[in-house]
Amino acid sequence: MDDSKVSAILQAARRRFAHYGVSKTTMNEIAADIGMSKASLYYYFPDKEKIFIAVVEQDIAEFVQVIESLISRTSKASFKLKKYVVTRNEFLVRLLNLAKVETLIASDVFNPVYDELKVSFFNKEMELVQKIFQQGIDQQEFNKFPVKEYADLFLSSMVGLRATALTSKATENRNPDYDKVERQTSLFVELFLKSVRSN
Amino acid sequence: MDDSKVSAILQAARRRFAHYGVSKTTMNEIAADIGMSKASLYYYFPDKEKIFIAVVEQDIAEFVQVIESLISRTSKASFKLKKYVVTRNEFLVRLLNLAKVETLIASDVFNPVYDELKVSFFNKEMELVQKIFQQGIDQQEFNKFPVKEYADLFLSSMVGLRATALTSKATENRNPDYDKVERQTSLFVELFLKSVRSN
Repeated sequence: MDDSKVSAILQAARRRFAHYGVSKTTMNEIAADIGMSKASLYYYFPDKEKIFIAVVEQDIAEFVQVIESLISRTSKASFKLKKYVVTRNEFLVRLLNLAKVETLIASDVFNPVYDELKVSFFNKEMELVQKIFQQGIDQQEFNKFPVKEYADLFLSSMVGLRATALTSKATENRNPDYDKVERQTSLFVELFLKSVRSN
Repeated sequence: MDDSKVSAILQAARRRFAHYGVSKTTMNEIAADIGMSKASLYYYFPDKEKIFIAVVEQDIAEFVQVIESLISRTSKASFKLKKYVVTRNEFLVRLLNLAKVETLIASDVFNPVYDELKVSFFNKEMELVQKIFQQGIDQQEFNKFPVKEYADLFLSSMVGLRATALTSKATENRNPDYDKVERQTSLFVELFLKSVRSN
């Protein structure tokens, strides 16, 4: 595997996906954009879905890095958790803009190929959120609670609030209601923090 | 409209839906079950989707009645809220069993006809939950908070937690994970109550 070639493919594909969406992008176009033969492109990636997954994996790695650096700071866990949710929302808007779909849940129905991606992202998020929870408990900012169970609830709520706000009747024929997602997820964090905070 | 005829149609349809699902039930079968001519059946209902909606509306009315009677009790608002969630979960299992679909969100993709039903149920639930919140505030069991905004978050979380638990990869090829829905929604209520409880 030639890393610079892979990176050129992903860069070209990313541009195409962002402008035309995954469904309207062809392998031919990606190959042509970087002056690569179709055969070479297929040597690196068997189909455009695999390229899309690799592009999303780049973005996820970047998101994880941003959050890891947030976690390594000395700030309070409550600050980190709020920041996590804001960063997560921004990240998903960018990501789904790239995919030209409103929610991964909706796209899922038609693209089971992304299931694995969703599960691995959820598991990665579980790790990150559990770290923040554990920091809060260790620093006695939070009362002791079962971090895994709470992280699952926390992230399932994030996923669920997003899905319901973006697929609700009210948003039909309109832009996805990202404002509602932001409002509801940040209210959720506030309530969550109130319930776990010590003192 | 002959009420006894309508009620016979709904009863027969309910039996069919529960055994075979909506998609495998025909107007002919419903008519035959109650010895009614096709023409008469069509006089009352233009298609089986409308019959299904009427059946679900019966169930919703019953759910609302159960909750109204819960609300009229003298119990604590926190008790009522927990009871609401348990009753809601049981109700939805029965309802979706009737529809032979796992979640209304999933079925929605294929049946926009149920959108209106979902919206009107959500609005009805908003009323009920706001009443319970207001009781808690009035009785100084809860701190003062914006009931409408919190009810929206509360119910969106219920819908979202249910949808994510029932559509997650882990449940593929298995029975829907109703246990997870119960665990997560009851943990959510606990956290919610901790954050709004006075003292």
